[in-house]
Order: sequence, then C-alpha cells, then structure tokens
Amino acid sequence: MSRKKNYALKLRIWIEEDQGPFLGIGRVTLLNKIRETGSITNAAKAIKMSYRSAWQLVEDMNLRSDLPLVEKIHGGPTGSGAVLTPEGERLVKAFEKVQEEIRAHARKKIRTLFPKQKS
Amino acid sequence: MSRKKNYALKLRIWIEEDQGPFLGIGRVTLLNKIRETGSITNAAKAIKMSYRSAWQLVEDMNLRSDLPLVEKIHGGPTGSGAVLTPEGERLVKAFEKVQEEIRAHARKKIRTLFPKQKS
Repeated sequence: MSRKKNYALKLRIWIEEDQGPFLGIGRVTLLNKIRETGSITNAAKAIKMSYRSAWQLVEDMNLRSDLPLVEKIHGGPTGSGAVLTPEGERLVKAFEKVQEEIRAHARKKIRTLFPKQKS
Repeated sequence: MSRKKNYALKLRIWIEEDQGPFLGIGRVTLLNKIRETGSITNAAKAIKMSYRSAWQLVEDMNLRSDLPLVEKIHGGPTGSGAVLTPEGERLVKAFEKVQEEIRAHARKKIRTLFPKQKS
C-alpha cells in the first residue's frame, strides 16, 4: 500500500526551571527583537505585544535567570533603551542551535511513524 | 560561577499532514482511552471531553489518515462501542516511542544550554 498523504513531524521546545516555563520560542523572539530594535518599546511593537506585557516578560526572565538576560539603559542621546547581556546573547543562540539540532534529529523519525512515506 | 537553578528542556511533538495538525498528545490520549474503555462515550468521559468533541476528533483522524484509526461497532451485546484498528494501535505505539526517543535525545542537550548546570 502506498501512502497518499505527506506527513511531517513537528516539535516545540522550551526550558523550565523550578518555577515552571522559563524560556520558549515566544520569549526568544522578544529577545531577538530587543537586540534588533534596541528597546523593549520597539520590540513589543514589532511583535504586536503591549509594552506592559513585554516589560513583564523581561522582568520575569531577568529575575528567574542566574544572570540577567536584558539590560535596560536609561537616558543617553537616543533615550531609554535595552540590550541583551552577554548571557542573553549566549542563551538565545544556544536555544536556537539546540532547537535546530533536535528538529534535525526528529526529521529522521518520520519513517518510524510512516514506514511507507516515501514509497 | 555555579548555577543556583535547576533547568530542564521540555518538548512536545505532533504530526502534521497537508491539511495541518493531524495527531498530537491530546488525540493520542483519546485513542488510548478508547482502547481502555471500549467506546468513544466512555473515553470522552474519562478525559472530561464532550462526546460530540471526541466523536469529531475521531471522524477527523479517520478521514485524514490513509487507513482508519478507530472502528465503530454498532449494536452487539454490550451496545455501541469502538476499538482501535491495527493502524490505530500501530500509530499510537509509534508516536509514543518516537516521543520518548526524541525526549531522551533532548535531555542530553541541557548542557549546551546551561554548561555549568551540574557544577
């Protein structure tokens, strides 16, 4: 019997610590936007999130991480801004790398689920 | 610097076909309950889902799978019931096996995210 459908295995990863979910794709996207835009305000706009929600996520991440992930910069010639700390940069890159590695591993498993997928 | 927190990498897998999400942990739980209880009605009760919702999920799975996953049995001494087809049994087992394999693989990646986790 040949398969008529085309199946794919999808996956989502996230990090939990003792208090529950700590970092997933949503927060990683926010961190990437903070790097790109230089502020929490602009990052929030870019992902259509309220400033208040974005700010709360940043506070939560900074509080629950061993080292802060985002540093807020007050004043200066361009007004208030925010940057990723070295730990924030490291963790975003490591998350994306691990996610891609696990997805590559998972892609090989589709034959276990649908042995005749390619026939 | 030693880590004060205990981090864990979590993941969820699901299967998509051309029309979108096809099978994830929710539907696998429903299928397992159909096997255990012998009917869609009892399976729905066991997972606190309406009969209508459970029935629709079964219809959707049967329609979108190459082979039906659930067979409905009408009449008989114990009234209407439902059983997993051989393809339903196979796919549930394969899903759970693949999920466990990918989780085992993912557990090894926590050091990439938090190199000093164990120090």
